[in-house]
Amino acid sequence: MRTRPLKVALLGCGVVGSEVARIMTTHADDLAARIGAPVELAGVAVRRPGKVRAGIDPALVTTDATALVKRGDIDVVVEVIGGIEPARALITTAFEHGASVVSANKALLAQDGAALHATAQQHGKDLYYEAAVAGAIPLIRPLRESLAGDKVNRVLGIVNGTTNFILDKMDSTGAGYQEALDEATALGYAEADPTADVEGFDAAAKAAILAGIAFHTRVRLDDVYREGMTEVTAADFRSAREMGCTIKLLAICERSGDGASVTARVHPAMIPLTHPLASVRGAYNAVFVESDAAGQLMFYGPGAGGSPTASAVLGDLVAVCRNRLNGATGPGESAYADLTVSPMGDVVTRYHISLDVADKPGVLAQVATVFAEHGVSIDTVRQQGKDGEASLVVVTHRASDAALTGTVEALRKLDTVRGVASIMRVEGE
Amino acid sequence: MRTRPLKVALLGCGVVGSEVARIMTTHADDLAARIGAPVELAGVAVRRPGKVRAGIDPALVTTDATALVKRGDIDVVVEVIGGIEPARALITTAFEHGASVVSANKALLAQDGAALHATAQQHGKDLYYEAAVAGAIPLIRPLRESLAGDKVNRVLGIVNGTTNFILDKMDSTGAGYQEALDEATALGYAEADPTADVEGFDAAAKAAILAGIAFHTRVRLDDVYREGMTEVTAADFRSAREMGCTIKLLAICERSGDGASVTARVHPAMIPLTHPLASVRGAYNAVFVESDAAGQLMFYGPGAGGSPTASAVLGDLVAVCRNRLNGATGPGESAYADLTVSPMGDVVTRYHISLDVADKPGVLAQVATVFAEHGVSIDTVRQQGKDGEASLVVVTHRASDAALTGTVEALRKLDTVRGVASIMRVEGE
Repeated sequence: MRTRPLKVALLGCGVVGSEVARIMTTHADDLAARIGAPVELAGVAVRRPGKVRAGIDPALVTTDATALVKRGDIDVVVEVIGGIEPARALITTAFEHGASVVSANKALLAQDGAALHATAQQHGKDLYYEAAVAGAIPLIRPLRESLAGDKVNRVLGIVNGTTNFILDKMDSTGAGYQEALDEATALGYAEADPTADVEGFDAAAKAAILAGIAFHTRVRLDDVYREGMTEVTAADFRSAREMGCTIKLLAICERSGDGASVTARVHPAMIPLTHPLASVRGAYNAVFVESDAAGQLMFYGPGAGGSPTASAVLGDLVAVCRNRLNGATGPGESAYADLTVSPMGDVVTRYHISLDVADKPGVLAQVATVFAEHGVSIDTVRQQGKDGEASLVVVTHRASDAALTGTVEALRKLDTVRGVASIMRVEGE
Repeated sequence: MRTRPLKVALLGCGVVGSEVARIMTTHADDLAARIGAPVELAGVAVRRPGKVRAGIDPALVTTDATALVKRGDIDVVVEVIGGIEPARALITTAFEHGASVVSANKALLAQDGAALHATAQQHGKDLYYEAAVAGAIPLIRPLRESLAGDKVNRVLGIVNGTTNFILDKMDSTGAGYQEALDEATALGYAEADPTADVEGFDAAAKAAILAGIAFHTRVRLDDVYREGMTEVTAADFRSAREMGCTIKLLAICERSGDGASVTARVHPAMIPLTHPLASVRGAYNAVFVESDAAGQLMFYGPGAGGSPTASAVLGDLVAVCRNRLNGATGPGESAYADLTVSPMGDVVTRYHISLDVADKPGVLAQVATVFAEHGVSIDTVRQQGKDGEASLVVVTHRASDAALTGTVEALRKLDTVRGVASIMRVEGE
């Protein structure tokens, strides 16, 4: 074994960073044996230098992250700051000064992955980021390496623990969105400002990263259709139950039938209770991958948290260190397929539509005509009357999102349709 | 991209081999883009040369596998023959003549993995075998690489599709073992001689491989405690149901509490219906991995079959080819931890014991005394009387297998105990 240590600079020492530092110290012998050389924490960049950090030598702590990545003797920079800047500038500077990078930064990778990969390649360095998607669950490595000889057609998953906690709570207790969110906040599953989670921004970033890797093409964050889950109601859950379904916020990346284009989207959807994703409870994550040869694979585990994320970071750290000792780099960006990313209108799926209608003869015929005129075939209709008002629940066969949108616009114009109570996609069948 | 192709020799062209060859041909462009150089099928060694093999140039087919691996211009040998010899000799010869090896051979890896790894390392070559365990499910790569910075404490899984199909059938239809086996045979899920599957040999080989990788130590096939599932009865399933459980054939690899030793075992066990492994149906496989930092991860998918196994083989082929272009090798054997493998007697778990006893006063007291004398604490007892005979179902708290064995021996000596109807371990709680 090489005795000269590989030097690691840690950018950020919050929940994840402190756990990375702790494991690097307590498991130093294991890491050395697995890498083939010791690893040494050479510096820790933080914003608040005064804070006491158990187990970290105060002499290593600095507020000057730029100087740390410019030192020139750093082998690997571990970036767990998050956000776009200064993370982007620091990572770029790290490559320029000879370091490889391990990052947990989904927002940055989703927005600027291509440019960062290009910089890494230009300098002959590694950029690894297993921790950016679904915490500890190995997903990027399996997609990039294990399935490198296969053709992935679909990635379907729960990639945000906060929203899964909220939806699971709504499902199991009958609570409304706000009540479930309040509980998630009280328990620390939701942040004070939960926007990134509940509006689907976090999941959309992960969808962009997963789609790019799965389909060997570039998928930008703006390419991902995004719908949050703040408007999911207790009534939606009751409707879902009547169909033998529950509701999950899903990230769905699909290859089109002809293979020439892909789509990526995040939205709440009904899925059958018999689907394995339906039983993913609490803040857990799970991702289904469907490919030509392997068939259906599922990966399940904790999608967030300091320790799980640190596990993923350290797995990457070991890989990058090994590559460095080998004088090699791992697989970089693979975007050769250069596929078109189609808009949401092209997505084909099923829909559950709940309408408030006048309770009089002929309404169903009118509504059915509108669906037919837009080429959307109806699977089932359920009519419920109550005091002069009625509700009509329509479940469609597979149709394009564009056709469905046209249908709903036309339905809204009908005098007999008083309102569209909810529209939800039905997936996983 | 390099234009000179990497040359691949395929040993075996059965269900898996023919699928590997087919995908190498139909997805040649994708493989080339992902590797960075084209791959060329340079030879196919078979036993029956006369058989027509769609899509394979007859000029590539040979019965002389040894000459093929000795050619000297082969970059990667893909071994999908199975069994110990001639696979072992061919792989060794391949390393000696400059090739790296991708294998799907669980029996060989479990028996001789250490020696084969040593030969690979001696010649600076790769030995990859993701397909040897749980077909297409990425498991070896996640354990070896994704969790390389973590400490794995437990691997618990369904790693044999044939037995899971049979047990699932027994569970869902109430069928006995023989009836369910007959159906599995008729549908092609069980081989004509099902011994390797139903007696747990196949699962034990996978357990040895998984334990070795998970704990960074050597676990020989002989170290794995093995119990088949041919004696599981419909009555056992009824008992399991009464406990809110089902029965699965599990491979369980565990680190002891003090971390200094490990155990590996394969046997049927009751697991709660609420455990994710309980809902693994048909011939699917699923493996739980528990580690210090990542927590609980699960990997699920098809555990066998030509296409899924080919997917795993091709993922390894891409990795090995990339390493070759890099002039590097991937992670080899990691056995530095050098842990003791403890015998089955040291395993601590819970037990479900069904006794046929005389239906008279004092029996329960006698039985309970025997448990107490052996230090096995009872969780629940259920007594059922019928016509002078009675059954006593005891579920224990956690106890060592040695203590339980001693308990059962003593119980058999009691006049009032007419027989021990079944003993089954209870896992996953």
